[in-house]
Amino acid sequence: MSDAILVSAKDLFELVKDIFQNAGFSADHSEAVARTIVAGERDGCKSHGVYRVEGCLRTLKLGKVVPDAVPNVTTDESAIIRVDARGGFANLAFERGIPSLVERARKLGLSALVINDCTHFAALWPEVEALADQGLASIAMCPSYATVAPAGGTKPLLGTNPFAFGWPRPGEHPYVFDFATSVAARGELELHRRAGKSLPEGWAVDGDGNPTTDPESALAGAMMPFGGHKGSAISTMIELLAGAMIGDFTSLEALDFLGTTTIAPRHGELIIAFDPGRMAGGRLDPVKHGEALLEAIVGQGARLPSQRRFAARRLSIEKGIALTGAELAQLELLRSKGLDAIA
Amino acid sequence: MSDAILVSAKDLFELVKDIFQNAGFSADHSEAVARTIVAGERDGCKSHGVYRVEGCLRTLKLGKVVPDAVPNVTTDESAIIRVDARGGFANLAFERGIPSLVERARKLGLSALVINDCTHFAALWPEVEALADQGLASIAMCPSYATVAPAGGTKPLLGTNPFAFGWPRPGEHPYVFDFATSVAARGELELHRRAGKSLPEGWAVDGDGNPTTDPESALAGAMMPFGGHKGSAISTMIELLAGAMIGDFTSLEALDFLGTTTIAPRHGELIIAFDPGRMAGGRLDPVKHGEALLEAIVGQGARLPSQRRFAARRLSIEKGIALTGAELAQLELLRSKGLDAIA
Repeated sequence: MSDAILVSAKDLFELVKDIFQNAGFSADHSEAVARTIVAGERDGCKSHGVYRVEGCLRTLKLGKVVPDAVPNVTTDESAIIRVDARGGFANLAFERGIPSLVERARKLGLSALVINDCTHFAALWPEVEALADQGLASIAMCPSYATVAPAGGTKPLLGTNPFAFGWPRPGEHPYVFDFATSVAARGELELHRRAGKSLPEGWAVDGDGNPTTDPESALAGAMMPFGGHKGSAISTMIELLAGAMIGDFTSLEALDFLGTTTIAPRHGELIIAFDPGRMAGGRLDPVKHGEALLEAIVGQGARLPSQRRFAARRLSIEKGIALTGAELAQLELLRSKGLDAIA
Repeated sequence: MSDAILVSAKDLFELVKDIFQNAGFSADHSEAVARTIVAGERDGCKSHGVYRVEGCLRTLKLGKVVPDAVPNVTTDESAIIRVDARGGFANLAFERGIPSLVERARKLGLSALVINDCTHFAALWPEVEALADQGLASIAMCPSYATVAPAGGTKPLLGTNPFAFGWPRPGEHPYVFDFATSVAARGELELHRRAGKSLPEGWAVDGDGNPTTDPESALAGAMMPFGGHKGSAISTMIELLAGAMIGDFTSLEALDFLGTTTIAPRHGELIIAFDPGRMAGGRLDPVKHGEALLEAIVGQGARLPSQRRFAARRLSIEKGIALTGAELAQLELLRSKGLDAIA
């Protein structure tokens, strides 16, 4: 970027935190959300960086997130840790739940963190990375709002339902993937529409359920899952496990609750953590064993997921996070005007 | 089939069991394997039915399965149940482990069954269906032998790595999927070769790692995962969780151990079971809630996975299992000649 302004992660954190506090969020929520948004921007994930700030504030303005919710963590002798987010953003709920999740996984071999009634705008890699930093493998998933038709179907029912996985690596960034189970992110349809470009075949159906390559028709219709019936099955599994099974909204219910896809959805989240040492039962060193596989992937010229993100992170840490003047000006405006700056 | 002979499930079970016992398998293994093979044939899964009998016997003839292995089940206060299959077929190991898996999932909310050192030839739906019959949701996965290149790669490294999921439904067959994470089953390459047909684009690379549509070149090269880099990531996750993490072979190691893909591979298996009632924590009835989603999928004309299999099952139970005269003659030959009938 020619007009890039370099900002330290610390300064950007303070700025984003101030925006949320000035808008009415509690200090705890403001810090947790700022940590997530700065991590996204630092890693070059523009779609989950400062771009998200306005959407979060709009969610508050429309009364669809509780700005001072205190997450309630419940633990017992089971492998389930439950965090009632009480309508607040998921980020703080996760931060409050992770110590118990780690403790239970180490004690029992595996454990599950169930987050209920959270408002969700972030990627899932922060969760699985935080667990990998503790030496744990993990799977994370959640519904979204209904914008995706099941394979063979015609109408929005499933969400873009992200699926993430983390695996610890010694002396390296962890092996991490985090992807939508839709064929593309919903923002991609909008980008094609603005650019006046047709969509690839197989991405979407129109409002009548017929295949379409017209972005406008697709936005009024439904996206398709990735990978045909297999991806559709995985997305359905996410609705069942991270919606129905944890007593929380499916994507259709999340959409009904909000009535719009322009703000952050309310639903639950499911994270399963494994202690590899416990799971291996002393047979082989699981992390060392995993390295042999990952090195073989790289050794044949294939890329591991998240590498572009880790490269952006290295650059951001070394030189600062690059924002445009327009982005910074907008953040300053949001800091000073608060919710009044939100249309 | 014009020459179809209808056999009852009970008679076919006795026939298959006798074949395995005459070949030298213990009564317990013979019965467990026969149950699995008859279930496949009953459900119209020809690729996992009586077709598998010869491969199983060949595996024994080559000394790559222990015919009288007694699975060793280890439980403790953790959420992990470990079954050392001691080189025997996985079917008996699973049968021996499932009571503890169910007990732990009900007690702790979730639990994991780790099967080590098993020889594996079956689909994974018998596992997740058996758990759904107990009211549990579950995920099952295992490596295979290396025949699939990672997305962006050039050489076999991943297996066809099946991924299965089961969810209980009241008064209905459970919601079950079970698929290879490769773009197609390896048998599909062979069928295209025999039929002299080209493969679809994107299925495979040749021995030099270049994309190919020639089945012969593909068989000498590698298949690709389903769903591009997303499917490749899921297949890698299976190598890590159900290989490295449980202290067992990855697909490359399974292939090294056997030196061939023509017999059943040795590796481990991972099954994670959830008690939906415990996971929902009294918020909503998870199974009833799941029904609303599944009915909405069917309501828009999309199919649930496994429906063809369940339809075949209904027909088999009503009328008998249809085999050809040639299939039955071959089974009779295997019963009388044992391993001498195996080339």
